[in-house]
Amino acid sequence: MVSVTNIAELETPSLLIDVDRLDANIQRMAAIAKAAGVDLRPHAKTHKTPEIGRMQLAAGSPGLTVAKLGEAEMFADKGFDNLFIAYPLWGEQKWERLCRLADRITVRVAADSLEVVEGISRTAARHGIRIRVRLEVDSGAGRTGLQSPEQVLELARRMESLPGVDLVGLMGYGGHSSAAPDIDGVKQIGFQEGRHLVGIAEMLRAKGFAVPELTVGGTPSGPYAAQIKGVTEIRPGTYVFSDRTEVVMGWSNLDQCALTVQVTVVSRPTATRAIIDGGSKTFSSDAAVRSPGFGVVRGHPDFSIVKLNEEHGMMEVPAGTHLPIGTRLQVIPNHACVCMNLHDRVAAVRGDQVEAIWQVAGRGKVQ
Amino acid sequence: MVSVTNIAELETPSLLIDVDRLDANIQRMAAIAKAAGVDLRPHAKTHKTPEIGRMQLAAGSPGLTVAKLGEAEMFADKGFDNLFIAYPLWGEQKWERLCRLADRITVRVAADSLEVVEGISRTAARHGIRIRVRLEVDSGAGRTGLQSPEQVLELARRMESLPGVDLVGLMGYGGHSSAAPDIDGVKQIGFQEGRHLVGIAEMLRAKGFAVPELTVGGTPSGPYAAQIKGVTEIRPGTYVFSDRTEVVMGWSNLDQCALTVQVTVVSRPTATRAIIDGGSKTFSSDAAVRSPGFGVVRGHPDFSIVKLNEEHGMMEVPAGTHLPIGTRLQVIPNHACVCMNLHDRVAAVRGDQVEAIWQVAGRGKVQ
Repeated sequence: MVSVTNIAELETPSLLIDVDRLDANIQRMAAIAKAAGVDLRPHAKTHKTPEIGRMQLAAGSPGLTVAKLGEAEMFADKGFDNLFIAYPLWGEQKWERLCRLADRITVRVAADSLEVVEGISRTAARHGIRIRVRLEVDSGAGRTGLQSPEQVLELARRMESLPGVDLVGLMGYGGHSSAAPDIDGVKQIGFQEGRHLVGIAEMLRAKGFAVPELTVGGTPSGPYAAQIKGVTEIRPGTYVFSDRTEVVMGWSNLDQCALTVQVTVVSRPTATRAIIDGGSKTFSSDAAVRSPGFGVVRGHPDFSIVKLNEEHGMMEVPAGTHLPIGTRLQVIPNHACVCMNLHDRVAAVRGDQVEAIWQVAGRGKVQ
Repeated sequence: MVSVTNIAELETPSLLIDVDRLDANIQRMAAIAKAAGVDLRPHAKTHKTPEIGRMQLAAGSPGLTVAKLGEAEMFADKGFDNLFIAYPLWGEQKWERLCRLADRITVRVAADSLEVVEGISRTAARHGIRIRVRLEVDSGAGRTGLQSPEQVLELARRMESLPGVDLVGLMGYGGHSSAAPDIDGVKQIGFQEGRHLVGIAEMLRAKGFAVPELTVGGTPSGPYAAQIKGVTEIRPGTYVFSDRTEVVMGWSNLDQCALTVQVTVVSRPTATRAIIDGGSKTFSSDAAVRSPGFGVVRGHPDFSIVKLNEEHGMMEVPAGTHLPIGTRLQVIPNHACVCMNLHDRVAAVRGDQVEAIWQVAGRGKVQ
């Protein structure tokens, strides 16, 4: 790693994380969780970076959430000892890895089918250990998750006779809040998610199941779901940086966004077109909710990144704009999580000063 | 690397390259170039993989094209000695890297501004070397490139007095062929690109500039541009795999696609919904030209991947489909180049047999 002290010395394109903004976002969500009396278990898929995970733990979180076993193994290697894998794991290799991980650290895992639970059970029994399972319910996002209270009860009953697995809670996810028209719609989805989970938990408890852990997800809806009595944990991820989508959805304003891509204008083909040296391999092609284009240029609301090729960003600027080749810009991405996942390292900065280069150690851990 | 002999032993999601299909695609484009009497300088941004680049050289290519210096440095490290960087490089650090690279191998670079050419010139003069420059013209794609023959002539004249740079040719790019309604439209754009470049070259030659190299780009349009007398080189990239977009545009059929993502069904929440263990961090969010959804499931035209989250693919299947959790599928991605760039390694397969694991050594080389 070269010794760099100012962002002007970094080559472009390069990812910058403003650590003051990062810390403010971490403290803000920690305060929300504390006020609601719930655990904050941040989803680390957003950053995949041990240094940031440690800041989240320092702010009071008991542990992190991850999507993939490979992310969990990376964080365990870096000393994290309490992880929730919010994903249904399938296959002998993955169940083996899960059990080896559970030998090292405290791990919880999601499941939404008997098939997955049986696989985990069989492998855990062979290892002579017990795995904590949270059953996932579909909160309305239309993704994974059991579809009805009856399905949850049936699977909970089947689990009673299975060795090696403990039903410790329920998991919901308000991902459909991205389709809400405004922050009030997000709030309603958060409330619904919380009530839905609590309702199923009460039914299970009436049948004799303890289900102490009720975890809900998502940056914009999670803080609202947390206000429903009975919810015990929230798992927001993107809050840590925020991004253009979270701004549109109402979580933060643009100034609070901590992650930017530093780019350079490398071509000025016409008076109204400027080409930046970042494209879909730098930002990703993810669209922002209810917004055209591919990111917001900090300090230049009149610039529009209208199209991305792989390594080119096509930017429209007003005629007469003084924007020579070589100008550096900072772009707030549409979606921070997929942007981070394209990069091996990121510069932690305070103002224009580079304080550290962090490895995105979980990047590309798709397995 | 674990020793794996059958794709069933690979964890998912995992990238598979069918080497028979890969080789057929390589041979097919090589034959097209040979028949047209032009060089084929494949754009290696598609694969970023030395093993594949070597197959392309073995099929008769004089060298490769890359988009980024970091890609060029990687290929040079792997023994490639003739590279074209089809990108305007800006900044002292990049010009220094370019000159150090030119000390090692034969390198050409694109430029479309006096600013970039002057920077390269200054640095090359300091190194006591000469850099081969191809001036980029905008063929209609609306990306980088000089906008008129007059601009090209003016920059060519300015270059005559600059040390350290040699004008060796012109570069075009028919990227707007993706907006053509059908293969006939693609063909017309290819022809136009070729004629446009040849026309500017003839004007320059009348003014005393040699411009021996006329390079045109793109998988679907390049083969047509190559048919214009005077074009000397094509730079297609995606042809090597093909993908859903290239199928829609008419380059190949689905069976010829060499790159797939092997995924597993990890959840069956409803009779018509299946969740696969690959999302936007596995496939990318790139849309396919004129097609909804996120990839084609090989052998299952009735399955639709309707939405991606980061690690989840939401698939709709006909009611009554027997598709249990644990089923493995192979998905042809919308856009091979960005999909490859998300993965550290890929399995080279023949049928169901894994012949090798290749490192995607240029992945993430955004600088």
